[in-house]
Amino acid sequence: MDIGFIGLGNMGKAMALNLIKGGYQLRVWNRSPRSAEDLVKSGAVVAEKIEAAFAGDIVISMLADDAALRRLLIDGNVVATAPKGLIHINMATISVALAEELTELHARHGIGYLAAPVFGRPDAAASAKLNIVAAGALHLLDRAQPLFDLMGQKTWRMGDVPYRANAAKLAGNFMIGAAIEAMAEATSLAGAYGVAPAALLELLTNTIFAAPVYKGYGGLIAEDRYEPAAFKLSLGLKDLRLALAAGDQANVPLPLASLVRDNLLDAMAAGDGDKDFAALAKVTQRRAGQRKAS
Amino acid sequence: MDIGFIGLGNMGKAMALNLIKGGYQLRVWNRSPRSAEDLVKSGAVVAEKIEAAFAGDIVISMLADDAALRRLLIDGNVVATAPKGLIHINMATISVALAEELTELHARHGIGYLAAPVFGRPDAAASAKLNIVAAGALHLLDRAQPLFDLMGQKTWRMGDVPYRANAAKLAGNFMIGAAIEAMAEATSLAGAYGVAPAALLELLTNTIFAAPVYKGYGGLIAEDRYEPAAFKLSLGLKDLRLALAAGDQANVPLPLASLVRDNLLDAMAAGDGDKDFAALAKVTQRRAGQRKAS
Amino acid sequence: MDIGFIGLGNMGKAMALNLIKGGYQLRVWNRSPRSAEDLVKSGAVVAEKIEAAFAGDIVISMLADDAALRRLLIDGNVVATAPKGLIHINMATISVALAEELTELHARHGIGYLAAPVFGRPDAAASAKLNIVAAGALHLLDRAQPLFDLMGQKTWRMGDVPYRANAAKLAGNFMIGAAIEAMAEATSLAGAYGVAPAALLELLTNTIFAAPVYKGYGGLIAEDRYEPAAFKLSLGLKDLRLALAAGDQANVPLPLASLVRDNLLDAMAAGDGDKDFAALAKVTQRRAGQRKAS
Amino acid sequence: MDIGFIGLGNMGKAMALNLIKGGYQLRVWNRSPRSAEDLVKSGAVVAEKIEAAFAGDIVISMLADDAALRRLLIDGNVVATAPKGLIHINMATISVALAEELTELHARHGIGYLAAPVFGRPDAAASAKLNIVAAGALHLLDRAQPLFDLMGQKTWRMGDVPYRANAAKLAGNFMIGAAIEAMAEATSLAGAYGVAPAALLELLTNTIFAAPVYKGYGGLIAEDRYEPAAFKLSLGLKDLRLALAAGDQANVPLPLASLVRDNLLDAMAAGDGDKDFAALAKVTQRRAGQRKAS
Repeated sequence: MDIGFIGLGNMGKAMALNLIKGGYQLRVWNRSPRSAEDLVKSGAVVAEKIEAAFAGDIVISMLADDAALRRLLIDGNVVATAPKGLIHINMATISVALAEELTELHARHGIGYLAAPVFGRPDAAASAKLNIVAAGALHLLDRAQPLFDLMGQKTWRMGDVPYRANAAKLAGNFMIGAAIEAMAEATSLAGAYGVAPAALLELLTNTIFAAPVYKGYGGLIAEDRYEPAAFKLSLGLKDLRLALAAGDQANVPLPLASLVRDNLLDAMAAGDGDKDFAALAKVTQRRAGQRKAS
Repeated sequence: MDIGFIGLGNMGKAMALNLIKGGYQLRVWNRSPRSAEDLVKSGAVVAEKIEAAFAGDIVISMLADDAALRRLLIDGNVVATAPKGLIHINMATISVALAEELTELHARHGIGYLAAPVFGRPDAAASAKLNIVAAGALHLLDRAQPLFDLMGQKTWRMGDVPYRANAAKLAGNFMIGAAIEAMAEATSLAGAYGVAPAALLELLTNTIFAAPVYKGYGGLIAEDRYEPAAFKLSLGLKDLRLALAAGDQANVPLPLASLVRDNLLDAMAAGDGDKDFAALAKVTQRRAGQRKAS
Repeated sequence: MDIGFIGLGNMGKAMALNLIKGGYQLRVWNRSPRSAEDLVKSGAVVAEKIEAAFAGDIVISMLADDAALRRLLIDGNVVATAPKGLIHINMATISVALAEELTELHARHGIGYLAAPVFGRPDAAASAKLNIVAAGALHLLDRAQPLFDLMGQKTWRMGDVPYRANAAKLAGNFMIGAAIEAMAEATSLAGAYGVAPAALLELLTNTIFAAPVYKGYGGLIAEDRYEPAAFKLSLGLKDLRLALAAGDQANVPLPLASLVRDNLLDAMAAGDGDKDFAALAKVTQRRAGQRKAS
Repeated sequence: MDIGFIGLGNMGKAMALNLIKGGYQLRVWNRSPRSAEDLVKSGAVVAEKIEAAFAGDIVISMLADDAALRRLLIDGNVVATAPKGLIHINMATISVALAEELTELHARHGIGYLAAPVFGRPDAAASAKLNIVAAGALHLLDRAQPLFDLMGQKTWRMGDVPYRANAAKLAGNFMIGAAIEAMAEATSLAGAYGVAPAALLELLTNTIFAAPVYKGYGGLIAEDRYEPAAFKLSLGLKDLRLALAAGDQANVPLPLASLVRDNLLDAMAAGDGDKDFAALAKVTQRRAGQRKAS
């Protein structure tokens, strides 16, 4: 099978490498070509132009955001001029609105389209432990499944309409932000009465909240350590915006998402955009007078 | 050791039974004496008056709320007239303010006081799987530990000031409400795009949110089944009020707790107070037009 | 007519003086007797004990808060031992719950009870420009009307159940907090784009928002001047708490009231409790990075 | 002076007529030409193409929203091909981001650009009672002033950067939504205790909240009459979105704006988008169980 791969950030590079290890030949493309070097050593071929990667049997894209996708694939006419029969698997976290637009665009040009965003950070991508949320036509999903199996630990199918996978992914990312906010408020509350954040979180994340999101972000809050960022707060804000936009479009009020977004803006104004998503906790601490403005 | 036990609701009865099974002789008291009958069959002695139970080496109380404690123990002069040297272990979820008041009151009258609220529903109490959050003087905690070991799977010590355990418990209960609200909004968001709540929650509660709170309450939301209530929504509201009162007293803004409280009031107005705490999810569904007012 | 007056703070003293100017003989009582001195010069008689003021034809009370009322009038048995036929006009801002309790208590002891909280600051009290919100039995209101006419510019009757006047007063005070929060956010928003708060507020408070609340508090925000406080932020917080408690008791979600309360707690934590209510605006400014923590 | 006028909705038509009455000759253009008929009777000349109206000395635009402006003026290349020296006065409520983009675009093509959004409904436009918020280069503002004087009662200048006027307008419109939400919560709170919304609002809108926004929207809430809409709720939502987008772009958290937006989405889901903005009050009433879902 002839596979293209577009977008070689931390996530994309690790995912592409797992496909190569699985025996596939990849043509890879990235805006900055240097990111492709490691993959070339492993056997990938560099596509000089994005059109050369957006071809073959299947192309996987893992671009940064809506704007990058729009600029490269839509405005750049790449989808419109791709060979008929190609399947495009878009694994990035994008807006529901763009997913709808892309579905329609691909259909018009005879290109298969799957949405398959993932849960998992770069280390999960490297160890092929991603959880892949996939949606689109069943026969396309079946075609893509062997690739998903090389990149993730499990694929969660959300039906035959691609944007459903994006909605599920945004809902999940919103829940991460909500969990951080909940830990922020809970630790500030208990902290006001002399319970250290670490003591409260040790209790809760080993009992009723013993889940990866709570252990992971809770650990950072307990240690008050927000650098280096495994997932930047500014990226968390981006996802909250997408969740709110999806809610707005469908008349679904999401007051908790609004609250998290507003507190993330507070964190941005405080200069914490490049810190870890968990730095959201500093907002509550400052507001409660438990922490000086940095 | 001579042990009294006050308050034989679903939780108290199960906890008392485990102490009896562990070989302790109990004098038990409950406002409605019928609740004591099962325990009597297991060997407990019924105290005719609360004062007879609030005596001996250790007395454990598991009363319904602040008002019950205040009426029985403070206004009823029970603490003031108890024998010196008695240790009172208050295992109910109460306000931080009352915990402070009780600590001072007990000290003034020469009675030991421990706060030891628990995480776990009646089934966890029955199987001695409670997580006990305990605080108070170290030597008292050590005295109480054998009893804790019979009632719970683990004791989490929060230091030597009793109210710290209450603050930790309230912080945890608030986080449960926050998790339900997050699942409510996430499922309504994804639902607006055709993803069934069960599909989203199966994905999330088996991966990054694989924790008891999410599996338990998420299961109820997925099945849209809120009766019979394992933990009533009106009791969840009571705990949120206590968390907010504790925050208010210490100048800690808790906007997420406020949001959950406001949505719980919406649920109360809709007549769902006796349904399970998870029925909070119906609020978002109604607001998004995904569910008729019942 | 024989009139008692209890509670001689800034408001009470000014109101009592207007009654004296109107030709009435007053027996006055205050916890700290010094506050009565000015009134004595104007002809008032000092009651040594509160019972001596809580007597005669009509007694007006203007005490600080629920706690003071409860301590003096209920716990102190003053209502229970007052002469039958006395009319008590409670003009302080108190909780709806206490108003209900007082109504029942007075009825049981044969004392008339009116609730008559006021809108207006001490300067309005001094110039008899208060707006009086009154409720209670019609014949009692008619008896009280000549006194209201000496203290206020207009009396707004809210029916025959006293607590209705308290509910209306709390609703109004909540709206003041909401207006300040709205101006805070609006000025921070416009300020981020180079519009000075004073320029925005000059526009709005002279056109579509040309009302005393906006002109008054808006003027303080425009000048960034929060001392001396005409109405302390901590008192605004007290009233928001009462509004939220009334909403809670009746299952009325008040998310805007919750928001204002949470931001007032932020202001308290920042040390602004003794500043003017308008200092609530500093919270948004800090959060937006437009103002350093002081 | 040679004046073009683009966008003849209820507002635009009334404003254009006042210019004609003031002695100006207008070339008018509207997407649907029928709207121009009344103006032709008054002496206006119809421009067959938008380019013919976007010419002369000054052109005023009053288009519906960002999308219409972008489609007609930017994508349609109208600005790019307009005669140098023309002054464009954009009086519509648009986003700050688009205002910035338009400022830059006009400058690049040698066209003067002023932002001059207005406060006031169609009746105010008809009677030349608008409040005009204007910003842009001083010499352009001076050129435009005679036109402003024919359309409005007062012009409020916000400096020389056009988008400042848009930021001020959005801040003001947000404050309208906040005022409606405050009245909604206050009337539901008081209503729960037997105070009719009309009674509370009569008190407040004639005293401390005696301002046009409160009297106007408050009157609709008091009468529970939301049709016909003077200003549609869906348009209020549009403006709240623009305010939030401006806040987001500048890292200004606006929790009250978020709250109003979320409640407006609730109203949309309930089918009230075409009702008056004041129908926002129905959301709180439904949530408090004071009103059935319609």
